[in-house]
Amino acid sequence: MALESREVRLRSRPEALPTADNFSLETVTLADPGPGEVQVRNTWMSVDPYMRGRMRDVASYVPPFQIGKALEGGAVGTVVQSNYEGLQVGDVVMSMFGWREAFNAPGNLSGMAMMKLDVSQLAPELFLGVAGIPGMTAYVGLLEVARLKEGDVVFISAAAGAVGSVACQIAKLKGAAAVIGSAGGKEKCEYLRSIGVDHVIDYKAETDLTAALKQAAPKGIDVYFENVGGAHLEAALNAARPFARFAMCGMIANYNGGGAPVNYLEMIVGKRLRLEGFIVSDSMRLLPQFLGEMAGWIAGGKVTSTQTVDHGIESAPAAFLKLFSGENLGKMLVKLT
Amino acid sequence: MALESREVRLRSRPEALPTADNFSLETVTLADPGPGEVQVRNTWMSVDPYMRGRMRDVASYVPPFQIGKALEGGAVGTVVQSNYEGLQVGDVVMSMFGWREAFNAPGNLSGMAMMKLDVSQLAPELFLGVAGIPGMTAYVGLLEVARLKEGDVVFISAAAGAVGSVACQIAKLKGAAAVIGSAGGKEKCEYLRSIGVDHVIDYKAETDLTAALKQAAPKGIDVYFENVGGAHLEAALNAARPFARFAMCGMIANYNGGGAPVNYLEMIVGKRLRLEGFIVSDSMRLLPQFLGEMAGWIAGGKVTSTQTVDHGIESAPAAFLKLFSGENLGKMLVKLT
Repeated sequence: MALESREVRLRSRPEALPTADNFSLETVTLADPGPGEVQVRNTWMSVDPYMRGRMRDVASYVPPFQIGKALEGGAVGTVVQSNYEGLQVGDVVMSMFGWREAFNAPGNLSGMAMMKLDVSQLAPELFLGVAGIPGMTAYVGLLEVARLKEGDVVFISAAAGAVGSVACQIAKLKGAAAVIGSAGGKEKCEYLRSIGVDHVIDYKAETDLTAALKQAAPKGIDVYFENVGGAHLEAALNAARPFARFAMCGMIANYNGGGAPVNYLEMIVGKRLRLEGFIVSDSMRLLPQFLGEMAGWIAGGKVTSTQTVDHGIESAPAAFLKLFSGENLGKMLVKLT
Repeated sequence: MALESREVRLRSRPEALPTADNFSLETVTLADPGPGEVQVRNTWMSVDPYMRGRMRDVASYVPPFQIGKALEGGAVGTVVQSNYEGLQVGDVVMSMFGWREAFNAPGNLSGMAMMKLDVSQLAPELFLGVAGIPGMTAYVGLLEVARLKEGDVVFISAAAGAVGSVACQIAKLKGAAAVIGSAGGKEKCEYLRSIGVDHVIDYKAETDLTAALKQAAPKGIDVYFENVGGAHLEAALNAARPFARFAMCGMIANYNGGGAPVNYLEMIVGKRLRLEGFIVSDSMRLLPQFLGEMAGWIAGGKVTSTQTVDHGIESAPAAFLKLFSGENLGKMLVKLT
């Protein structure tokens, strides 16, 4: 039984900030799944900052999106037809086929490409956020890359975003002496206070981020969870204690261009800083450990999940652009059904 | 018996590149050493790139030099009077009193401030170079910070300098698959070949350092020993393999100003690079291990020591400036007697 599915394709590569013109909405007709395949109707899809990098035609840790093809990324959905014994109709799966309402795919794909979810404890959409790649990015960045220790003073930029908001909460749960979160605007700052952030910096209200950070952390910071680059990185370098560790995650400000801090090399050497880039997919061995801890935290009310939800596949490009204008609070999602 | 000693003082702080006008030569008369003190006549003194940083009036890992005071730094000398039972007349000591012909100091200073040297195997001046702080900087940077492994492809900038020339040789001794060294000019490049560097880049003859580095290391580099910043760092970022480690040592180009690479943040994240600043004095626990290995290498003819020597305390400022014009080959020293 053929199924119509709308999908969002990359029409052209953005030069700087993407615009709606870089995307097109198309309708395809899906045949029935072939042997060994399943048909999945997506219920939620994710838009994430790293997708900006894939819109550029350069070799990176993931290949670039192709012009005229549907954009890829995380989604959760329900199996509606199955020719694969490992998946039944009604099963909920997370997949990486992204910006489309439905798809056919081999059922035996492994890892993040297609993963059956246990939704007995957690709502499906949480696997795109706090219990998914963004949450695990926070977990890996703080614990494995920055090697967070009890008593550390931790600074987190883009703290009200999908990764940052989880990082703030994990840092507190793991014994940080103080968590300083930066976000733009009153609503986000209030949100940060509500999830237990000790010192909130509204970067839109500050003319001197270094001064604001030093005021929040008079003795300096031990860990910086880097999400944005630019002036935030400069402030973190300035406020770093000797031997501070910087977990270099996505840097949304720099994805669309942006300068480098003055004297950053002297600070790296003089303060013996460690700046370490990471990509969560290198640390998938930690997934069971992460899911176990996170399920417990959510069940115990110790981690709050926050989402901003737009509706319908046609709203996906606009939802994606909200990541760059900072309109989302917590995880930005598109609900498809 | 009073002793006349000439010393070089900081007359004014350099704005960019230091000039001779920033220094003055003065003569002082030393009294006999007091109780517990020794009098040392320096035979060799060291000029080092890090001293440029101390000429600036900013807080750093070492306090700034004071205007009107003699510059500090490594020197070796001979005890000529002693009121301290642990040191005898004729003992050879390394000290940090720097740019002066002689000094009185408490004999019980510890660590690098005053250290009796065993000169039975190694000439005294080697303790200012290959068997001293520069050599140990190479050792710590490669082995502890960059965690050099057998089979690594290693890039070393300022490779013909005091630190770089030792780093090239240690990298080979520790099993690097290939060592790429960068230096300026034909003489230095020939020197690098003579100490076993596999691929030599004459940066003064290259218009595109990234292309030159990628040609020398078609599969990319695993380790970068960073001594200069600027275009070298940019080339290293461009040529880095995933998970490459950068040991961020002194950066002589950036000490006097210089830009930051474009897109460096995206490269740090995308390639999961680790950039780690270090200062050798944090790793003094490795000194016995280093001295043991290095003495063996020198005795076995496996490490070559190269020095550029100027004569007389009055030549110290010019010798220091040669570090920035790149006129030195290997360790830059001033012989005082």
